[in-house]
Amino acid sequence: MSRKINFGIMLQGAGGHMNSWRHPKSPVDASVNLDFFKATALKAEAAGIAFAFVADGLYINEKSIPHFLNRFEPLTILSALATLTSKIGLAGTVSTSYSDPFTIARQFASLDLISGGRAGWNAVTTPLEGTAKNYSRNHPEHALRYEIADEYLEVIKGLWDSWDDDAFLRDRVSGKFFDRDKLHTLGHKGRFFQVEGPLNIQRSPQGQPVIFQAGSSDAGIGLAGRHADAVFTNGVSIEENRTFSQRVKQAAVAHGRSADHVQIFPGIGPIVGSTQAEAEEKYQTIRNLISVEEALAYLGRFFDHHDFSAYDLDAPFPELGDIGKNSFRSTTDRIKRVAKEKAQTLREAALDAATPREGFVGTPDAVASKLIDWFDNGAADGFILGFPVIAEGLDDFTSHVLPILEERGYFDPQLPGHTLRQNLGLPYRESVYAAGAGAAEKARA
Amino acid sequence: MSRKINFGIMLQGAGGHMNSWRHPKSPVDASVNLDFFKATALKAEAAGIAFAFVADGLYINEKSIPHFLNRFEPLTILSALATLTSKIGLAGTVSTSYSDPFTIARQFASLDLISGGRAGWNAVTTPLEGTAKNYSRNHPEHALRYEIADEYLEVIKGLWDSWDDDAFLRDRVSGKFFDRDKLHTLGHKGRFFQVEGPLNIQRSPQGQPVIFQAGSSDAGIGLAGRHADAVFTNGVSIEENRTFSQRVKQAAVAHGRSADHVQIFPGIGPIVGSTQAEAEEKYQTIRNLISVEEALAYLGRFFDHHDFSAYDLDAPFPELGDIGKNSFRSTTDRIKRVAKEKAQTLREAALDAATPREGFVGTPDAVASKLIDWFDNGAADGFILGFPVIAEGLDDFTSHVLPILEERGYFDPQLPGHTLRQNLGLPYRESVYAAGAGAAEKARA
Repeated sequence: MSRKINFGIMLQGAGGHMNSWRHPKSPVDASVNLDFFKATALKAEAAGIAFAFVADGLYINEKSIPHFLNRFEPLTILSALATLTSKIGLAGTVSTSYSDPFTIARQFASLDLISGGRAGWNAVTTPLEGTAKNYSRNHPEHALRYEIADEYLEVIKGLWDSWDDDAFLRDRVSGKFFDRDKLHTLGHKGRFFQVEGPLNIQRSPQGQPVIFQAGSSDAGIGLAGRHADAVFTNGVSIEENRTFSQRVKQAAVAHGRSADHVQIFPGIGPIVGSTQAEAEEKYQTIRNLISVEEALAYLGRFFDHHDFSAYDLDAPFPELGDIGKNSFRSTTDRIKRVAKEKAQTLREAALDAATPREGFVGTPDAVASKLIDWFDNGAADGFILGFPVIAEGLDDFTSHVLPILEERGYFDPQLPGHTLRQNLGLPYRESVYAAGAGAAEKARA
Repeated sequence: MSRKINFGIMLQGAGGHMNSWRHPKSPVDASVNLDFFKATALKAEAAGIAFAFVADGLYINEKSIPHFLNRFEPLTILSALATLTSKIGLAGTVSTSYSDPFTIARQFASLDLISGGRAGWNAVTTPLEGTAKNYSRNHPEHALRYEIADEYLEVIKGLWDSWDDDAFLRDRVSGKFFDRDKLHTLGHKGRFFQVEGPLNIQRSPQGQPVIFQAGSSDAGIGLAGRHADAVFTNGVSIEENRTFSQRVKQAAVAHGRSADHVQIFPGIGPIVGSTQAEAEEKYQTIRNLISVEEALAYLGRFFDHHDFSAYDLDAPFPELGDIGKNSFRSTTDRIKRVAKEKAQTLREAALDAATPREGFVGTPDAVASKLIDWFDNGAADGFILGFPVIAEGLDDFTSHVLPILEERGYFDPQLPGHTLRQNLGLPYRESVYAAGAGAAEKARA
């Protein structure tokens, strides 16, 4: 077989678990510890993980989880990592609802050049309503956010094509610095944005940064189908992810794109032990890092910081009506559905939400087999590894799971190229003005 | 004597001269060449230059000068340099008219942490009208831009004090991550900005990033007096700069600040030769990199991209009326005044503007003596070195001028500290909530 499983790693403080900082193996200040970011990125790169990913948020309050309270901003930490690493991709979240496309086009293009073509942008629409309070504006509702995002992506991709690949002549003798015919002024006049261009930076060795997307609502799938190179999703079940993958790839095909050019990355939090019992023990150690009060606050975050402390902990999960409907919708829907299916109390639902256990807890062989199962059955093109505790999980995974995948022909620890697109098996992103660029792209331009 | 002359270096493509890329010693792609940025920053750091500075602009067209057409974005390249250097300060321009304070507070705070307290922000209001065309909005006029900037700076400095220095407890045993009493929510509701806070990142080893400012109009001086730690100005003459320095320091004192806590950095472009004739020859080599057509286009940039090509080249410098009045005002005023004083033709004024020769062209001894003269006479606390051709100018300056300054007791090649504030002789920036913080700051809070 030639296709391999691609991996990314989430860099989020000491790990995905809200109290990962308390784990004995973690540095307590991981979320602002450059050495820890560096060591983790280098370890991941050496193991053949294709990209590091920095998530983000633009609003906190005292109830936010610890590594959200105090963390590096994605573009700055990714740029710092660019000079410390040489092959691993560098992707980060920036909101299309709370930023300017000209600035973001530049910052990612600059990161892309600095890193030699390794940048990726996770375009999110920002579910958290409180964000508006930090940005002197009102929070757009769900549908409007996706309409803005669609136009935003059109603008950014347009700006990234401002200069043809061979536009800069830099001829000392004639004094000709660039070829006027290879400069394209965007002149975008849309519903939300008016952006003249051109962008003041050239294209990178991969053409344009890789575009990630994460929303899994209908609007999110539509956006992904049109624009995304890769899509993050929850790693809930093989069935759900297969259906999701099919829908995204169909949406891509409907936009004249190849189904292979949008990859699905379920987010998983593997916990690996030499026996199932050891893995379960590691899970329990992590679950014990948290009190039920903290779990309630964590749950509340998905529901617009709803205060769950007033409810009876041991009564059935409460009816919440519209609370959280404009927020992390797919997550809140899932929490509500699971609570109903399993007849959970609020305590159980909160502890489960705060220490998710999605089925990648087990022996190296069991975890590897499950990854292959998802991959072979169209539920994933790769996985984004959100280790609950990075300092423990990354070593366990690279030492014990990746070698099994390699042995079975599903993984190559040697990254094949130098750009993120190469390492994900995605084609170079041609300019819409290039002779060989796709007809569909041209028609849209 | 204990006070020393501080130096910064402009990183702007191959150098400050518009055609520096054509110089035989320059890499032609300097403005997007990471290795060149790295080598320059390391050389400057080794020589004891206190900070590297990346200027910026948000609008180009085909008439823009070469290194503006294609260049790294400041925050990303500074973050990349942060991990490649260890002592040199890292300052960059970001516009208060075309960005969001919450985002910029975060990005500079993040750079400040990544670099161990070496970040500086040059807050500009963006003179270039065309910028509005890239940002879906109208360009605010001069006075309004400064009113926005003043509130913007208030917001940013407030956000930077969101967390007291000892707010993060990170106590594994108790699970207490932070002290609630040491978290401050800004709650800013102003004329231009409503920003709730808190910021999601801690303070840095220097407290807050150093604030640079560059406007030299009355409004600019007012802003500098209230907020700036350091001010860039044109290095035109000792008299002008002494007057300017006095006005800025008086403005600082009027705001309850120490005159020593706002430093004046004239921008100069030294060209050093072992004899005056050799220095003049180097100047001519640079002046010859440019055609008169290019010089006209360069001149036009200061005047809102006014087209000077229709005028008679050898007639007196034309009357321009209001053209350029909302743009780089102090520069256009100076160009007009000098043209009148020297009875220049348009050709002469354009060639002079494109290859400025401000009087720091000479032997090491002459240049060093002049720097000391400016410093001793209150015209400068330091200098920002905008070498016309970095690849030539930096070596000449560090090898021949700095040793003379050191010998005379005006320079120490060993940077005294690790943070930018330490290396500029500025005090740690206390939080407004700290017990020892100045009463004036508290009264304003």
